Amino acid sequence: MPDVLVAGASGFAGALAARIVDRHPELTLTAVTSRSDAGRRLDDLYPHHRVPLVLGALDLDEVGPVDAAIVAYPHGASAPVVVQMRERGIKVVDLSADFRLRDVATYEEFYAEHPAAQLIDEAVYGLPELYREALRGASLVANPGCYPTAAILALAPLMPYLDDVVIDAKSGVSGAGRAPSEATHFVSADENLTPYGVGRHRHTPEIEQELGAQVTFTPHLAPLDQGEMVSCYVTLTEDLDVLALYQERYADEPFVELAARPPGVRDVRETNICRIHVHPDERTGRVLVFAVIDNLWKGAASQAVQNLNLMLGLDETAGLT
Amino acid sequence: MPDVLVAGASGFAGALAARIVDRHPELTLTAVTSRSDAGRRLDDLYPHHRVPLVLGALDLDEVGPVDAAIVAYPHGASAPVVVQMRERGIKVVDLSADFRLRDVATYEEFYAEHPAAQLIDEAVYGLPELYREALRGASLVANPGCYPTAAILALAPLMPYLDDVVIDAKSGVSGAGRAPSEATHFVSADENLTPYGVGRHRHTPEIEQELGAQVTFTPHLAPLDQGEMVSCYVTLTEDLDVLALYQERYADEPFVELAARPPGVRDVRETNICRIHVHPDERTGRVLVFAVIDNLWKGAASQAVQNLNLMLGLDETAGLT
Amino acid sequence: MPDVLVAGASGFAGALAARIVDRHPELTLTAVTSRSDAGRRLDDLYPHHRVPLVLGALDLDEVGPVDAAIVAYPHGASAPVVVQMRERGIKVVDLSADFRLRDVATYEEFYAEHPAAQLIDEAVYGLPELYREALRGASLVANPGCYPTAAILALAPLMPYLDDVVIDAKSGVSGAGRAPSEATHFVSADENLTPYGVGRHRHTPEIEQELGAQVTFTPHLAPLDQGEMVSCYVTLTEDLDVLALYQERYADEPFVELAARPPGVRDVRETNICRIHVHPDERTGRVLVFAVIDNLWKGAASQAVQNLNLMLGLDETAGLT
Amino acid sequence: MPDVLVAGASGFAGALAARIVDRHPELTLTAVTSRSDAGRRLDDLYPHHRVPLVLGALDLDEVGPVDAAIVAYPHGASAPVVVQMRERGIKVVDLSADFRLRDVATYEEFYAEHPAAQLIDEAVYGLPELYREALRGASLVANPGCYPTAAILALAPLMPYLDDVVIDAKSGVSGAGRAPSEATHFVSADENLTPYGVGRHRHTPEIEQELGAQVTFTPHLAPLDQGEMVSCYVTLTEDLDVLALYQERYADEPFVELAARPPGVRDVRETNICRIHVHPDERTGRVLVFAVIDNLWKGAASQAVQNLNLMLGLDETAGLT
Repeated sequence: MPDVLVAGASGFAGALAARIVDRHPELTLTAVTSRSDAGRRLDDLYPHHRVPLVLGALDLDEVGPVDAAIVAYPHGASAPVVVQMRERGIKVVDLSADFRLRDVATYEEFYAEHPAAQLIDEAVYGLPELYREALRGASLVANPGCYPTAAILALAPLMPYLDDVVIDAKSGVSGAGRAPSEATHFVSADENLTPYGVGRHRHTPEIEQELGAQVTFTPHLAPLDQGEMVSCYVTLTEDLDVLALYQERYADEPFVELAARPPGVRDVRETNICRIHVHPDERTGRVLVFAVIDNLWKGAASQAVQNLNLMLGLDETAGLT
Repeated sequence: MPDVLVAGASGFAGALAARIVDRHPELTLTAVTSRSDAGRRLDDLYPHHRVPLVLGALDLDEVGPVDAAIVAYPHGASAPVVVQMRERGIKVVDLSADFRLRDVATYEEFYAEHPAAQLIDEAVYGLPELYREALRGASLVANPGCYPTAAILALAPLMPYLDDVVIDAKSGVSGAGRAPSEATHFVSADENLTPYGVGRHRHTPEIEQELGAQVTFTPHLAPLDQGEMVSCYVTLTEDLDVLALYQERYADEPFVELAARPPGVRDVRETNICRIHVHPDERTGRVLVFAVIDNLWKGAASQAVQNLNLMLGLDETAGLT
Repeated sequence: MPDVLVAGASGFAGALAARIVDRHPELTLTAVTSRSDAGRRLDDLYPHHRVPLVLGALDLDEVGPVDAAIVAYPHGASAPVVVQMRERGIKVVDLSADFRLRDVATYEEFYAEHPAAQLIDEAVYGLPELYREALRGASLVANPGCYPTAAILALAPLMPYLDDVVIDAKSGVSGAGRAPSEATHFVSADENLTPYGVGRHRHTPEIEQELGAQVTFTPHLAPLDQGEMVSCYVTLTEDLDVLALYQERYADEPFVELAARPPGVRDVRETNICRIHVHPDERTGRVLVFAVIDNLWKGAASQAVQNLNLMLGLDETAGLT
Repeated sequence: MPDVLVAGASGFAGALAARIVDRHPELTLTAVTSRSDAGRRLDDLYPHHRVPLVLGALDLDEVGPVDAAIVAYPHGASAPVVVQMRERGIKVVDLSADFRLRDVATYEEFYAEHPAAQLIDEAVYGLPELYREALRGASLVANPGCYPTAAILALAPLMPYLDDVVIDAKSGVSGAGRAPSEATHFVSADENLTPYGVGRHRHTPEIEQELGAQVTFTPHLAPLDQGEMVSCYVTLTEDLDVLALYQERYADEPFVELAARPPGVRDVRETNICRIHVHPDERTGRVLVFAVIDNLWKGAASQAVQNLNLMLGLDETAGLT
């Protein structure tokens, strides 16, 4: 069985990735590392994941040979680690934003100077519903952002016909990461609801790159731990049978569900599933699309494993159902 | 001091209206009534409101003469009660939808047969920021819906220039009323987020009537008790200095605040305030407007008292700060 | 593979039992029934469980032969169904209180006239950590209440030495069941915390029967969906090395964990595990024991499957890890 | 009107104290200071309090003469500031633990070296229901801890008869203060419930000092923002009519309510009220007492103002109803 390393396993997404790999029937979780919590047990930090490993420092020599790695570092910090791993031939799924944008200038506008632009061409965008074939042969996968995952899956069937696109997104607080802050303090987030990143959220160019259309994207912080919803309001360039388009597009997708009524984020909690409801609104001519995912699962860790499955030639759904 | 009756005081909005009237320095709370809970003490049902009255049945003879009433009944049930009260010369603020829509046909499309269409012309739409002068002389006020309150205040300054309007709204569970149901069960609503009334919510025609523009309006249920947000995405027919428009329009409004950053619903919890943030988005040419209210206060009970203050010739802010 | 029927699968515990059986590697979920929701799809009621079956009415002839059943009916309604099933030789795990108390008079004091007292002797109390051997041969198992599960596991190692016992318990709202009510309304339960059943909760005699000691037991409703904690304050009749007692008692238990620090209910969310922290308090001479379970899992549905595994001769942990 | 300074107004309790003073009909809020946020507007940090002042650094020369101060600093940091203020003749309500314990050795066992033990004798323990007369003449008041407030009020009527006392307490997350940490992160606290300070919480000696009895005290963190409950399990040295004792003891207290049924923390949200339910349990001979307060109000800020009212010779309830 392939040996897998999870780097950055003390964060929410990394820890969950470690758990999914640990229970995966065809993968071995070889090591977990952390920059901030090396020396602590993972099942002390996250008892409910029940991964009985001690977090180590990231030293590839010490870790020993592994076949693949999931890297859950912040953008900027991730790329140098990925470079190191690729030099040793380790297949990598990178959860950061470092290799998601194909245009360096856009990356540098929204993030910072690119730490390893030479690897961008090698990276495949890790949305299996769009890039399944490329992912099978990939050695470096840029795992999508959580909002882009939901937004792109919500609108992919309409892609060539998108005219005007408004995306109003809502996410649970785990999306803000594990670092304590004023915004993630229980007393700030509880009984509250706040838009953020208005007009300049970093996931905007990622969504636009994949949809090939300009979007108005605004995320909101909602008082729940896990779960994410995108509410999309679009006009199309053509009159289409949109329900048929969705049914056809997603007929064989193991992790996309079409729902007859508007979904709640609870419907997909702790799953790799994206659940979508489409409502062509006759009165206004708009198409309304609502999609829900678990931001830590399909929006991060379980999608990373779905990508790993493809890269390693395993059944795409292994360890995920 | 004017004597005030609150009918339907066992519901969330009615009970809060009773509390605000009870503490009001220039009003006397004469009686509270309830169809479902007559005989129970209001401070047993809602200890935190601390209104030490027993709920009675609604019998205007028994209640005795009152100057004004706040009626918090469901649509359809409200109109007959309002008719009775108006016949006795009682000034009424009606929290139901019965007299909000000026067009009977629209009412009957979205609700049911109109129970008292003859009173529609008498009713003034109870949004003081739009109809202050008319409210001063009014004997019957149709208190706005919670979503329309936030949406109309959010967009009123842009009214003549509105082209394309998308309103994505989020509300706490108290907006669904006190009746227990599958949707309001803690286990359904907690850690969840769900759109509802997609494409056909009853507040749509009310918003369109006041804004004079077609809107795409979608509310979502969020896991909090009180609080409501509208996120508005609009294009305009003209290029305008929108920030100046808002500042001018709301300079003297005691209950509208303009905020330099996106507001959270917590910012206005238990107040009569609507807090608004405007973001002209240069990249897409859209104007983004976020407005928050407390759905039970400015969205219902405290706005009813604001209207009552105007109708009775009192200081508009009395009992509300 | 044994065929299993889940009766009462529209409630929270029944639905979860259906899901666990459905994914169980050595059981077949043959049918799900409901008194209130026959005709609805289970994955429409509970999308996140993803059990693609239609709820039927409970007609044993129509259901056809099954090996075992999990019955998730309220007390009183359960016994007649269990009688019917036992007459056909079906092995039953009963989630109601009907067969938990060995003393009919106590049952009738706390519940109502006993509907089938003749079966009490046949029933084994379904706490595997106490009755494992008896459960292997059982045909009728009385699945423990959620609070008794946590309380008894928390104190079992101290059983012969218990002198004075105070148990302060806290439960998420799912413990109150699926029926909407004033208490389970989101707006009542959210930002709240309330003791209930003070001095007379029905789980008291069940705990006392098993512990063989009088207890002061008070549950509280807490604003979370799943999860339960018992905080036990006990004095002992002897001076003991209590930590050693616990370690010895639970060394080989697959679903009991001893924790070095006080556990949170999140630690065991969606697991069959009871996690326990013991603190001998030198200052006061009391022993403090904190135990957490997921009230719907170890407190109901997954413990039912653990019992079923024993009754059917399967690995006790099958389908539960 | 007396001029009041609030020092440490950027924390939860200090900010609320500033708001209550700001709206108080007989006090003037002269200045607000903060060690961490000097320069920020208080209504930017806490929009819902609507106190339009800028936080300054604490420089008594610059602040100018004030009649009284509320100091909301952590223990240890508070005493030196209090010393400074007392030297200038400023009356002080201190929210820290520095002057609550009359025994220096106990303070040093539970906290640290005492920074100003010479002031202990001057300080009056600020629970008006116990020390009203002494508070009227006080120049330095040690405002009680939140748990002690609830626990002492819950048990004061039984004080001379207390034998065995167990107090199981639950608090919302605001009790942990504004500093972001792993424990106060929304994702840690939400859907969770955790005991802490087991066997050694700092409020224990404070409760024991006032009750004159040994107590077993254990607090738990609950997923709500504001609100606190103590569930007390006591045995008495005598057989008493406890209900009569409570009614007599609290007959004239403006901020203590006796409730016929178990209270929820929501019942007293945003009030200075302590609501108490007493249940003499015939079966076990124990007396059960449940008391709820708002930890930030009666447990801190509004009780500070109640004390200030007494110290300054104002109506005790001014600004608090």
